[in-house]
Amino acid sequence: MINRLIDKIQKTGAPIVVGLDPMMKFVPGYIKQAAFKEYGETLEGAAEAIWQYNKGIVDAIYDLVPAVKPQVAMYEQFGIPGMIAFKKTVDYCKEKGLVVIGDIKRGDIGSTSEAYAVGHLGKVQVGSNSFYGFDEDFVTVNPYLGSDGITPFLKVCDEEKKGIIVLVKTSNPSSGEFQDQLVNGKPLYEIVGEKVAQWGAEHMPESGNYSYVGAVVGATYPEQGKVLRKIMPNTFILVPGYGAQGGKGADLVHFFNEDGLGAIINSSRGIIAAYQQEQYAKFGETGYADASRAAVLDMKTDIENALNSR
Amino acid sequence: MINRLIDKIQKTGAPIVVGLDPMMKFVPGYIKQAAFKEYGETLEGAAEAIWQYNKGIVDAIYDLVPAVKPQVAMYEQFGIPGMIAFKKTVDYCKEKGLVVIGDIKRGDIGSTSEAYAVGHLGKVQVGSNSFYGFDEDFVTVNPYLGSDGITPFLKVCDEEKKGIIVLVKTSNPSSGEFQDQLVNGKPLYEIVGEKVAQWGAEHMPESGNYSYVGAVVGATYPEQGKVLRKIMPNTFILVPGYGAQGGKGADLVHFFNEDGLGAIINSSRGIIAAYQQEQYAKFGETGYADASRAAVLDMKTDIENALNSR
Repeated sequence: MINRLIDKIQKTGAPIVVGLDPMMKFVPGYIKQAAFKEYGETLEGAAEAIWQYNKGIVDAIYDLVPAVKPQVAMYEQFGIPGMIAFKKTVDYCKEKGLVVIGDIKRGDIGSTSEAYAVGHLGKVQVGSNSFYGFDEDFVTVNPYLGSDGITPFLKVCDEEKKGIIVLVKTSNPSSGEFQDQLVNGKPLYEIVGEKVAQWGAEHMPESGNYSYVGAVVGATYPEQGKVLRKIMPNTFILVPGYGAQGGKGADLVHFFNEDGLGAIINSSRGIIAAYQQEQYAKFGETGYADASRAAVLDMKTDIENALNSR
Repeated sequence: MINRLIDKIQKTGAPIVVGLDPMMKFVPGYIKQAAFKEYGETLEGAAEAIWQYNKGIVDAIYDLVPAVKPQVAMYEQFGIPGMIAFKKTVDYCKEKGLVVIGDIKRGDIGSTSEAYAVGHLGKVQVGSNSFYGFDEDFVTVNPYLGSDGITPFLKVCDEEKKGIIVLVKTSNPSSGEFQDQLVNGKPLYEIVGEKVAQWGAEHMPESGNYSYVGAVVGATYPEQGKVLRKIMPNTFILVPGYGAQGGKGADLVHFFNEDGLGAIINSSRGIIAAYQQEQYAKFGETGYADASRAAVLDMKTDIENALNSR
């Protein structure tokens, strides 16, 4: 799956992942009204609204980008109907040929970690049958519990040729509270990065330079990104924090390798709620999906320019 | 809710939480057969089997213990039908008067963290209505992302008078890989513990000594528990790792305060799969729930003895 992601990045020329993090305040009024008319102002109504909203965006951008990253929390908040909308979104994106990164940030140990791995990347056994539960291509994973939490995922990654993306240095202002603590002069996120590189070295696909184990490093920390890029040369880096969180194109160059690969930049509300920004207001509410398409194209240019001028 | 938990611990005399972590290999054959007969060897069949299995255990133990802790991964692995079984389990336990700790170990930032908080502890807004998504009483939370990940949960805790339980020092063998790293001579878990104490001090209920912010500290690390008990005097500690993971009654005393409170000990497979152990084999498969009841009573005695002999 890492090689499929790379192949799609090269074909689209866009190292971009669109974060499908639907909030009700992003969903155009006419979509909400239609959903509420059918299901009422209920969890089912909310789930229908975010699903229709997602579908419009995916239809408008699927040929431009290699991947999407649905944030499960935005679905999980609507209970069971929300989880159904999550699954429909994952399935629909895969039908459209997109690589799906489930932003689930799960992390547990032993058999529990294995259950998450099986539920989101692999197949669960039921009697003599087996089934995919949610079936993403990659998932994000929290490293706080150490190797016991990661190893069960890696087993499933090997079986399914899928991948995990481990939180190393997150994009938020307080990420330093624990991640930047110095251990013998070295920040904790570097120690996590070294582990990611090690896990990755043990889980490489049959061909290619990048392992099944990716890393999350926030666009808001470009200097740290530069260091981590060196510590994890064969790790694909998922970079959140571009756009709404303040990261700029020029900050991104350090996350890429010399081969122009090795990073994929996420934008969520900057793309999916583009129509609510002044720059794309001309598209109006009913043109929200076209606004998202325009925002993807602008982001692609911004990254291209940044990479060309390095 | 923390005071309700304490009240129930005092009434039952059992600082015990039963981990409802159903694995298919724990479910008695006759329950699986009935579920598969109705739904086939499908995700729905698996979900029905674990729900019936849980119901039997809850019916057998609800008067003995204050709380249960369903591990969401064990449900999530069965996709949507699994999540429905999780919700049914949470709702049923609450009907039976049990405090429900959702072992979800979620952790994200900002609006995403808020979505998890709203979905699992609070109410989500849909138009002019609001709904509980999963509606646990407490949830476990991962601290790796820092305060940005915790604060949104605390807002919901204040509104709903519910609580979070933050991973501090987990019970697994590799928990030290990152948690034990020394920062100026102090292990990271102590720094996390200090933060937990601080978050808790800012989020106390109107009466009582224990805050809305609990901590997970593994029974397998009693010495670390002793230190953390002092660092977090007003923190309730959820202690996993008793039984199957190797923790013993005598290891547990350090997790309690002088008031005999401040800790609740989890056992999962040691109770829910008791009938598979030699000690409780006499109950047989059809007596699995009675075996669980017997195992709870034995665990209660073990903890009582340990606390009395300190």
